[in-house]
Amino acid sequence: MRKNFEINSLDRVSIIGVGLLGGSIGLALRAAGFTGTRVGVGRRASSLRKALACEAVDEVTRDVAAGVARAQLVVLCTPIGRFEGLLRGMAHALMPGTYVTDVASTKVKVVRLAGRLLPGTVRFVGSHPMAGSEKTGVEFARADLFERSLCLVAPGPKTPPAAVRWIRGFWEVIGGRTLTLTPREHDDLLARVSHLPHAAAAALVNLSVRESAIELAGPGFADTTRIASGSPAMWTDIFRTNRRAVIKAVDRLINELSTFRRRLDRDDADAILKWLTASKEARDRWISRRYKSKVLPP
Amino acid sequence: MRKNFEINSLDRVSIIGVGLLGGSIGLALRAAGFTGTRVGVGRRASSLRKALACEAVDEVTRDVAAGVARAQLVVLCTPIGRFEGLLRGMAHALMPGTYVTDVASTKVKVVRLAGRLLPGTVRFVGSHPMAGSEKTGVEFARADLFERSLCLVAPGPKTPPAAVRWIRGFWEVIGGRTLTLTPREHDDLLARVSHLPHAAAAALVNLSVRESAIELAGPGFADTTRIASGSPAMWTDIFRTNRRAVIKAVDRLINELSTFRRRLDRDDADAILKWLTASKEARDRWISRRYKSKVLPP
Repeated sequence: MRKNFEINSLDRVSIIGVGLLGGSIGLALRAAGFTGTRVGVGRRASSLRKALACEAVDEVTRDVAAGVARAQLVVLCTPIGRFEGLLRGMAHALMPGTYVTDVASTKVKVVRLAGRLLPGTVRFVGSHPMAGSEKTGVEFARADLFERSLCLVAPGPKTPPAAVRWIRGFWEVIGGRTLTLTPREHDDLLARVSHLPHAAAAALVNLSVRESAIELAGPGFADTTRIASGSPAMWTDIFRTNRRAVIKAVDRLINELSTFRRRLDRDDADAILKWLTASKEARDRWISRRYKSKVLPP
Repeated sequence: MRKNFEINSLDRVSIIGVGLLGGSIGLALRAAGFTGTRVGVGRRASSLRKALACEAVDEVTRDVAAGVARAQLVVLCTPIGRFEGLLRGMAHALMPGTYVTDVASTKVKVVRLAGRLLPGTVRFVGSHPMAGSEKTGVEFARADLFERSLCLVAPGPKTPPAAVRWIRGFWEVIGGRTLTLTPREHDDLLARVSHLPHAAAAALVNLSVRESAIELAGPGFADTTRIASGSPAMWTDIFRTNRRAVIKAVDRLINELSTFRRRLDRDDADAILKWLTASKEARDRWISRRYKSKVLPP
């Protein structure tokens, strides 16, 4: 894969939104041997100063058109709610042949938006690097954030295969492993293993607050609900840009819980034991595969 | 509290079931200065040999009546499914005035069973030390397992207050903090902050296995579902002995998820943002209280 991406064929990369992810891309590019210019684009002068101080980028600007001009690669790292304005703002300033990608957690709307707003001469391929944490801000950026992480790549229906290979090469150069999916596959699968668990965690916390039940919660509860401490604004965007798939996933969970409830109501010990055993075995197998393949750190 | 419990007024303590929790009680008693005899009662000779090798107990027997004879304190640490047989087996052998407690995760059925099967001369007080992990077996036992952990104490309606104070003193001597609840309060609250999250985690794993969605799951999913790797047999017991409260908790979760689903369906960004913000703030406040009070380790 990697041969399609030549880091030294680039001399200018533009990172729009220099927080944890954007900053880590800047640091990772430098660590991978990129010798060109990393341009940071942001809204607040204070954030841009911090990004320069962290050496995550080499130049900064608050003007998106100026920021993307002459770049061969543009990576959108802002909240998804700002994509429309940014894509409109950069469309006329991009050089023909420029690669554009992003790091948002949903892909159908992003790929559709880029297809609608960017000129046909630009090569857009959606990305979703599964790295990061609840921490936000360039001060937490790390050159090795993508090391061994899984980066999902979601091209649109008309994206040339060579552009997909190039973007995969980019993520692989900074340490990630890549997997290509359609935007629809991506959003359906992520609804189930990421967006649904987030909704469940938020629901469990909100229920536990009533009559102060949470005061009796222990370390198991802390783990189960950890993701509920993520950014409410970011997660509102994720849910809203993946509404249909999340609704379907919530329906599946309600259905699964209703089945468990019925088995418990008729005290069906065998069915409950089988259900819990299936779950334990599936999780244990998955965890041991993760450790073994080292796709992701434990 | 502690003044009601004099560790050196005891010369014989019987631990029924010497696994992670039972073994840790044995080690913690010795570490707290207990100089009498710790008797381990178990079913398998191999487990009892391991318990002796770990120095978690001083004597072992497979005969429950012999094991509890002359003990001033008996602690039941087996799966709850064996309690009925054990209580029947020990009833005639207990000295008048002996304290009996347990470590099971549900309390209504246990307290009722003990009230029915033990003679009135014996002082039974239910306990639930909120310590342990997915690990099982005496080889993981630790003298400091209960250090700073919360031990819930659930007396029956006729338990004398002095017996409750004595059992609280016992947990406090081995490092725990105690809180007294009725068995009903205990089971209702635990259904919400422990049993319900477990059911949700198992449901999320079982859903994620279909079409291999789990292969895209990341570290957030691993945390959210960690508890689903717990013992299926133990959790079947917990659910079955707390059926009504768990069913009510599952209904609440289904209701909460249905509300979220409705808001998402009508794309109500404000309501979703508020719900996620409430959840994040409640969890962050709870986590900071846990750290500050040091009730439980982070």
